[in-house]
Amino acid sequence: MGLLVVGSIALDSVATPFGETADAPGGSAVFFSAAGAILHPVQIVGVVGSDYPQGVLQALEARGVDLAGVERVPGESFRWKAKYSYDLSSRETLETRLGVFAQFRPKLPDKFRDARYVFLGNIDPDLQLGVLDQVRRPTLVACDTMNYWIHSKRDLLLELLRHIDILMINDSEARELSGDWNIYRAAQWVLARGPRMAVIKQGEHGALLVNSETTFKVPAYPLQEVFDPTGAGDAFAGGFMAYLACTDDVSPANLRRAMVYGAAMGSFAVEAFGIQGLEHVMAADLRARVRAFKELVHFDVDEGGQTP
Amino acid sequence: MGLLVVGSIALDSVATPFGETADAPGGSAVFFSAAGAILHPVQIVGVVGSDYPQGVLQALEARGVDLAGVERVPGESFRWKAKYSYDLSSRETLETRLGVFAQFRPKLPDKFRDARYVFLGNIDPDLQLGVLDQVRRPTLVACDTMNYWIHSKRDLLLELLRHIDILMINDSEARELSGDWNIYRAAQWVLARGPRMAVIKQGEHGALLVNSETTFKVPAYPLQEVFDPTGAGDAFAGGFMAYLACTDDVSPANLRRAMVYGAAMGSFAVEAFGIQGLEHVMAADLRARVRAFKELVHFDVDEGGQTP
Repeated sequence: MGLLVVGSIALDSVATPFGETADAPGGSAVFFSAAGAILHPVQIVGVVGSDYPQGVLQALEARGVDLAGVERVPGESFRWKAKYSYDLSSRETLETRLGVFAQFRPKLPDKFRDARYVFLGNIDPDLQLGVLDQVRRPTLVACDTMNYWIHSKRDLLLELLRHIDILMINDSEARELSGDWNIYRAAQWVLARGPRMAVIKQGEHGALLVNSETTFKVPAYPLQEVFDPTGAGDAFAGGFMAYLACTDDVSPANLRRAMVYGAAMGSFAVEAFGIQGLEHVMAADLRARVRAFKELVHFDVDEGGQTP
Repeated sequence: MGLLVVGSIALDSVATPFGETADAPGGSAVFFSAAGAILHPVQIVGVVGSDYPQGVLQALEARGVDLAGVERVPGESFRWKAKYSYDLSSRETLETRLGVFAQFRPKLPDKFRDARYVFLGNIDPDLQLGVLDQVRRPTLVACDTMNYWIHSKRDLLLELLRHIDILMINDSEARELSGDWNIYRAAQWVLARGPRMAVIKQGEHGALLVNSETTFKVPAYPLQEVFDPTGAGDAFAGGFMAYLACTDDVSPANLRRAMVYGAAMGSFAVEAFGIQGLEHVMAADLRARVRAFKELVHFDVDEGGQTP
């Protein structure tokens, strides 16, 4: 089943207490693809400047990412520079240079228009709506956004919510969007505006899947070493959507499994800088980590009557 | 199996965005007992002043709390006054009046000395060690502490760690004690100093049980309304220890269940002010909430090979 992602293809310069990178592959569509391709072929739509390293794109292609939707145009690629605090709990953006991304208008190659699983990475909601106009009959559309769009393009974002199945945002974004600090009420606020489900990413505390009937929580994987949190949310989205695409099953039980595959991808992502943590993950590694998640949360309810 | 708690018996005046209390029953031993007694009789050791409402103690007694270890001495009871932030994420202590608690020296009635499950609430580690000298052959000893003792009585606290089975503290305390901001490394630091297990309470994010072999995570129960977080940690401890006491089973599988019973008690505690949230909980309510926790985290690993 076709799996499509639209988002940024960037060059990141990130400093953490454990090291730093300069112009390393990054951006929401790249993290999504690096994770998703471990499970399922990914169709990527984005734009790069004339300076974007061809080797990065070739490496993605070699892993099953279809680059037919990547435009290369004259100018500079999107660059992002940030520094994390000593405990990785916060980060400061030092520089954002949009470059060719400022003029990005996603155009889907015809063969991408039949994609059944669609992820709209964090870009202008106007462009996200434009992508939806181009896909024919998606089974499931998930969408990310950020505080910037919540404030500057709220009406368009609310329009977008009427056309997607899953809003996938982090907890602070859910609070800002809904105006409610209680995360479960914030999720209900989202559901009342169109999406059938809300996925709320909580960083080191995992993620929630909320629909009108039930809430599912997956914790973050217990890691004694975290090197770089960048891209964890997009890797999560990549694992989640690719698992759904490769199983082509959106039943409640399978959505829960998809959450765990997403959390597993996020955990691999943060174990190294940039996309390096995802580059050598094999399907067997992923399955082992999913079983470790089961071990992390599993308990049997005592139905035998030992308890008063 | 005898279940013993030593800790504070206080009068709390708490303000949250949803209301306030004045001189309401509180203190670690009271929250522990109010929760624990839902599952198992509790023996409480503490001190009250001449002003402590007899009705509060009688209500506990009526629910199965043995007051033989509660001293009433001339003077004022321990009073604590605090105010929570609008989102309940932080609180400010406005006043602490130790009163008769300042001279508290726990003395166990002889019948309490055979307790098999012992919880040392957050008091001076010197007194916690004194309690351990008085119990004969406990099966399991768990202990809480706080930043104040971590800084002022570190050596005694480290001595105490050599004599207990479980250190049960919150995440910021684990970080301060170990000097490590990574919570999983902090837990390993604790294990290297004596306890077989560390239970790390994470407030709205649940709790972790860590031993040398495994980590178990229980999330917090998804609540759209939280009224007063005071005492949630002690209610957690009460549920955890009382479940172990009533099953008299410290196997790994049962310790996981005990964590869930603890989290369930914590969730009832925060749904109302002070101990009110615990006063009308029946065993059936508790079992229903434990099943809801199962629903919250349960997923089946796909072993059928749908996944590549």
